[in-house]
Amino acid sequence: MPVNLSAPQANSLLPVKGVQLGFAEANIRKQNRKDLLVIKLSEGTRVAGVFTKNQFCAAPVTLSKDHLASGNEIRALVVNTGNANAGTGEPGMQHAKQTCVALADLLGAKSASQILPFSTGVILESLPVDRVIAGLPACIENLKEDNWLNAAEAIMTTDIVAKGYSKRISLEGKTITITGISKGSGMIHPNMATMLGYIATDAAISQLALEQLIDYAVNRSFNCITVDGDTSTNDSLILMATGQSGIAEIQADTADYLALRDAMTEVATLLAQAIVRDGEGATKFMTVQVEAGRDLEECRKVAYAISHSPLIKTAFFASDPNLGRILAAIGYAGVDSLDVNAMQLYLGDVLVAENGGRAQAYQEEQGAAVMKEPEILVRVVLNRGEASATVWTCDFSYDYVKINADYRS
Amino acid sequence: MPVNLSAPQANSLLPVKGVQLGFAEANIRKQNRKDLLVIKLSEGTRVAGVFTKNQFCAAPVTLSKDHLASGNEIRALVVNTGNANAGTGEPGMQHAKQTCVALADLLGAKSASQILPFSTGVILESLPVDRVIAGLPACIENLKEDNWLNAAEAIMTTDIVAKGYSKRISLEGKTITITGISKGSGMIHPNMATMLGYIATDAAISQLALEQLIDYAVNRSFNCITVDGDTSTNDSLILMATGQSGIAEIQADTADYLALRDAMTEVATLLAQAIVRDGEGATKFMTVQVEAGRDLEECRKVAYAISHSPLIKTAFFASDPNLGRILAAIGYAGVDSLDVNAMQLYLGDVLVAENGGRAQAYQEEQGAAVMKEPEILVRVVLNRGEASATVWTCDFSYDYVKINADYRS
Repeated sequence: MPVNLSAPQANSLLPVKGVQLGFAEANIRKQNRKDLLVIKLSEGTRVAGVFTKNQFCAAPVTLSKDHLASGNEIRALVVNTGNANAGTGEPGMQHAKQTCVALADLLGAKSASQILPFSTGVILESLPVDRVIAGLPACIENLKEDNWLNAAEAIMTTDIVAKGYSKRISLEGKTITITGISKGSGMIHPNMATMLGYIATDAAISQLALEQLIDYAVNRSFNCITVDGDTSTNDSLILMATGQSGIAEIQADTADYLALRDAMTEVATLLAQAIVRDGEGATKFMTVQVEAGRDLEECRKVAYAISHSPLIKTAFFASDPNLGRILAAIGYAGVDSLDVNAMQLYLGDVLVAENGGRAQAYQEEQGAAVMKEPEILVRVVLNRGEASATVWTCDFSYDYVKINADYRS
Repeated sequence: MPVNLSAPQANSLLPVKGVQLGFAEANIRKQNRKDLLVIKLSEGTRVAGVFTKNQFCAAPVTLSKDHLASGNEIRALVVNTGNANAGTGEPGMQHAKQTCVALADLLGAKSASQILPFSTGVILESLPVDRVIAGLPACIENLKEDNWLNAAEAIMTTDIVAKGYSKRISLEGKTITITGISKGSGMIHPNMATMLGYIATDAAISQLALEQLIDYAVNRSFNCITVDGDTSTNDSLILMATGQSGIAEIQADTADYLALRDAMTEVATLLAQAIVRDGEGATKFMTVQVEAGRDLEECRKVAYAISHSPLIKTAFFASDPNLGRILAAIGYAGVDSLDVNAMQLYLGDVLVAENGGRAQAYQEEQGAAVMKEPEILVRVVLNRGEASATVWTCDFSYDYVKINADYRS
């Protein structure tokens, strides 16, 4: 069961002026489930994206990157579940293009490059593009601004709960709304390996500032989560700013920019953490915080070494304060000339290791008490600089093996 | 159960002239088990070692490196199980030194720096050095050349079977014997995280050539195995050459050197593979072979990405030829400008993927047949160079989680 996570309440996902969402049951892989989503954007909407670095990336990822790079105004996004259109070679690229052409026609857009396509589901199987295209008119028929919860449900694959958050801030006396949805169930799935995130706002922001904002936000949210270290072929995060709130266009590095940036980063962070909380088999949500390192890179190395270690993840599942495993991971993280005697390790507020070994005052019961909680903070203080990094992850349970060994889509 | 691995037959581990082994039940952690080993070396023996790069390395690792670097002739090794003497700070270093001093005294060696100490077992607990030292006389009493199987048993921790191999070659009309033992049970254990290997020969070889040989051998054996990617605090491999066979001292890059090098590498490889075969919960032994890469580094990156992926390891456990997971791992391995359309993926002899997707002639039953075998070859042909790399690993089963979640030493 997801760790401290439930689906958004009805009406908790606030409409964003200029963003309409429509869904359909297109029978792409299974019957009787929402599996196709169109997000239509009002004229003048700015869009920015960040995509998987996996070199086996899916056809729609390649095409979405090309369409964003074309500089043409993006008018709509289309997302199908049930099939990732990855490992599908040139035919897969044709299918993604056909989908864009069909949606551009239906919406009266000038060019197929004004559509961003996304797919998630099984890899290495041909996209049933006819069913995707056949489902588009139904999506367009039910387009409306108050459809975010349906949209969150339409992009789910093996997720247990739908994921969405809204936030409002005030800028120049006007209310700005931010709403986002995400999918991915943490333990990145067999052939269902995708994290997707879509976040929209009615603020007006320059393209330059939006691109700066997405880098900032993704580095503090989607790039800080890990379940099993596997990077998918289809991971994508998209920011959309419609400008329909009526405020003046926000430029980079202004006070308004910082306010919007922080609010959007907060929504992105909650969406990213929701993916970890919904990790299959997950029973614990861990925050691994590495402080006082020389630079961000070494802090991230230590945080990821801890977060990826199957030995540590199984110990968390067992609520076992197994310090040796954590110290060993710090030791092999690859930090240059690390003085292991200078660092401290905390579980929650409890100092558990210092001077290269167990802290003198530490009692095993203290560590065990922290480990029993569903949310656990692991803090490593390197004491050699000013940098810090945080990674969120979950534990590693029987169910992880069960799901990934038994399940074959 | 270990995959195609059983303990050495009695008399299959051949004595090496100049190497005497003695063991004891020293009650270091548990009663009634061999937990202390002394390996005594004849005068003139050359010794070389390779040690863990984990910065949280154990006190005996630091001390063994110092003693080897001193240039003093090594007269004996001492190995205890039950306690790793790691994460024990300055007192741990004192304990390791006391052990060396005691054994040097008993053997009449001039200096404690002629002893190499090794420990394996729980981390973060104080070494019961009194019991170690008290056990040394018993080890010395039963020192003999024909004690290799006892020695292999004395260094076991959670290993299911003892690990040892011998090989004979002929050089200059004389018989050269190589015998080695190793420990480690693949799934690198909670607080029992150590791989140890000791290989001896009666060949005579220069120090320079021996150090060249150990680098060659370790890069093709112990550095090519992985179970869960965790690197221990105590990993060590030691080569010993007594010169008692009566052959002339072998110099680097001669024909005799190459013959000895290849034979010792073969023994090291079998010992390293035995650790993977004894991986707890392991049901499959996988050889991941990456060919036709630009350089060794990128081949190893791909091989390790495949070998470390929990998604792939659980699929092997399930005998599921889940190609998407393997292709995704190749895609995120970090190979510079990889052309995914140019590479091929084979399971055993079966071509399963090419041109960026499933191979046209491939039938799922073919892949499933390969995956059912206990020994599986995964071959990736990158088609962009001449380099290659091999990694051996095992699958990831319910028992891995069970052992690592339930067990706390």
